Amino acid sequence: MRQTLQKAPELDVQQWMNSKADITLQGCLGKVVLIEAFQMLCPGCVEHGLPQAQKAYQLFSPDDLVVVGLHTVFEHHAAMGPESLKAFLHEYRISFPVGIDTPADKGPVPKTMANYQLQGTPSLILIDRRGYLRRQKFGAISDLQLGAEIMALIKEEVVDHINLEKGEEQREESKRSQTVLCDDQGCRV
Amino acid sequence: MRQTLQKAPELDVQQWMNSKADITLQGCLGKVVLIEAFQMLCPGCVEHGLPQAQKAYQLFSPDDLVVVGLHTVFEHHAAMGPESLKAFLHEYRISFPVGIDTPADKGPVPKTMANYQLQGTPSLILIDRRGYLRRQKFGAISDLQLGAEIMALIKEEVVDHINLEKGEEQREESKRSQTVLCDDQGCRV
Amino acid sequence: MRQTLQKAPELDVQQWMNSKADITLQGCLGKVVLIEAFQMLCPGCVEHGLPQAQKAYQLFSPDDLVVVGLHTVFEHHAAMGPESLKAFLHEYRISFPVGIDTPADKGPVPKTMANYQLQGTPSLILIDRRGYLRRQKFGAISDLQLGAEIMALIKEEVVDHINLEKGEEQREESKRSQTVLCDDQGCRV
Amino acid sequence: MRQTLQKAPELDVQQWMNSKADITLQGCLGKVVLIEAFQMLCPGCVEHGLPQAQKAYQLFSPDDLVVVGLHTVFEHHAAMGPESLKAFLHEYRISFPVGIDTPADKGPVPKTMANYQLQGTPSLILIDRRGYLRRQKFGAISDLQLGAEIMALIKEEVVDHINLEKGEEQREESKRSQTVLCDDQGCRV
Repeated sequence: MRQTLQKAPELDVQQWMNSKADITLQGCLGKVVLIEAFQMLCPGCVEHGLPQAQKAYQLFSPDDLVVVGLHTVFEHHAAMGPESLKAFLHEYRISFPVGIDTPADKGPVPKTMANYQLQGTPSLILIDRRGYLRRQKFGAISDLQLGAEIMALIKEEVVDHINLEKGEEQREESKRSQTVLCDDQGCRV
Repeated sequence: MRQTLQKAPELDVQQWMNSKADITLQGCLGKVVLIEAFQMLCPGCVEHGLPQAQKAYQLFSPDDLVVVGLHTVFEHHAAMGPESLKAFLHEYRISFPVGIDTPADKGPVPKTMANYQLQGTPSLILIDRRGYLRRQKFGAISDLQLGAEIMALIKEEVVDHINLEKGEEQREESKRSQTVLCDDQGCRV
Repeated sequence: MRQTLQKAPELDVQQWMNSKADITLQGCLGKVVLIEAFQMLCPGCVEHGLPQAQKAYQLFSPDDLVVVGLHTVFEHHAAMGPESLKAFLHEYRISFPVGIDTPADKGPVPKTMANYQLQGTPSLILIDRRGYLRRQKFGAISDLQLGAEIMALIKEEVVDHINLEKGEEQREESKRSQTVLCDDQGCRV
Repeated sequence: MRQTLQKAPELDVQQWMNSKADITLQGCLGKVVLIEAFQMLCPGCVEHGLPQAQKAYQLFSPDDLVVVGLHTVFEHHAAMGPESLKAFLHEYRISFPVGIDTPADKGPVPKTMANYQLQGTPSLILIDRRGYLRRQKFGAISDLQLGAEIMALIKEEVVDHINLEKGEEQREESKRSQTVLCDDQGCRV
């Protein structure tokens, strides 16, 4: 493992939408996680970031990739409260889980956004199966590149840390032959 | 004049944004008026209707065409109040005047929207120089067609009704040689 | 009439496609003419210029606007001969008449292109009802602006020059109430 | 290995452009191969297939992915000869190698196209590092999905068949840490 890798800070979320249960990065270990940090009144998020996250949510298997939105409001707070967000998610047909980043005790930048030191919205975050932060991108990334980067992380083998701690190195079977991609024509191995 | 033409109902607006003074159709007589009826959380408005209205606002001379937005909220009222709208207009760089349609005394449909019997958002309304309703379109219209329809109305001669009432028929000079269009390279007669 | 206006030079066309008869500007007097000068292997023509001309051809009435393509080949001559052009027009579903600009006696630039002093392809030319050159644009023009410019020319009254020569000034009835625009939902006056 | 996998038929190419040397699938063993089968006068190829292949050519490392175009002319043969194709590749700035599929001895469908039983153009073909045909798609595939599918093949380990035949199983080191993606901001491991 390269030394620059660091554990992704846990999400600090006030409220979840499109999800019955709370979502934690800890609970996503073993899967790749895509976090789309956005604001509902950010044009670049509406035009590019959120549609791209929605496409990723539809294409990849939930066993391989968890897609979550993170509403990181750092301006116009009164205009982007929970009720507004709820209407927005409904109108834009966003179906993946979205968490509201917990407001800071002081200042406009919410807590998760601060922990990740995000530059603004939209920002895309990729976390590997072991919980390491692998990619953080402010602005747009092409679909071709995102598809490649997600799959590169999906294809990584996972060392079972619990077993490692027990002193037994035990590699998971390669996910290679099991990765599923779904499009309009169905799902393919 | 064809018999189907009817006077455009006056706007019933609660509050104006992007405009120091209130705007009335009465005050726009002599100019063509484009009304873009929208809701800030309506995807078709954000993607198509509002950018098109903004382009018309930039292309045509304000002496020929008045462009106004009309925020006709008929759903998610709590999510689309004045403060939210203000943030939205700022973030999406909408620079033409926008009026908030006055809420109904009863029911979700605001007053101007009801008076015009609009089917939904986005809706485009064109009013001629004499104040007659000439076009009402729910959904998308192509830029090519809209450009043509606006110019057809601009090119209509205006009979001065006040003078008509005095018994003097007095035709305005044709606007032909004075119509100005502005694009990135400057303005053209 | 402004002094800068000049008569549009007659087309010098070797062969017409999508048209049983030859087309001349002389024969189009009384109508507005849009000439789309293009090369079949010019990306900007394929992506922007030709689709725009096709939309204009569908939107406006043939009584108001004549749309013609002009294949002004000034490079890769061997790759863009008549047989190639024929296949191209078929594959790209271009249905308006297209004339092949007559090759020069000397040099790569064909005759009509030289007469109009076009800078390259795509170039858009607009000619008014009386045969005057009103617009010549190299590169892209927005649909909104083109629609407006075409309609401005359509709405111009036409002085019958033949009758003028006979000493009788005779203005055509304004085209105003007769202009027809057609879209997916039908045709509108 | 799943039983449905079959070796990709070797390319039968008459002439290569954008490449000094001939390209064979045999020579690409060890790398993933993307073949974009197209016709220069096919609108779907010009609008979607070729730009997508060009993006893949720029994004992935040539050590991981070989991108080749295959000009599979099955109609308008006279309009799409080598000289026309050369002009087309120049005008559309296509920089990856393109082979001209060898015409059939009989009938309009060229040889490689027939060997792969392609349904038409554009068609996308993906071949894995060991030379097996893994994907064949007529029509459009999304950038997100293509990026994922290419990377899935890149991440497959390669068994050295020559050594296998010698009875020595020898796995290549995982390509994982060496895969490079390049975008406007540079190249990333």
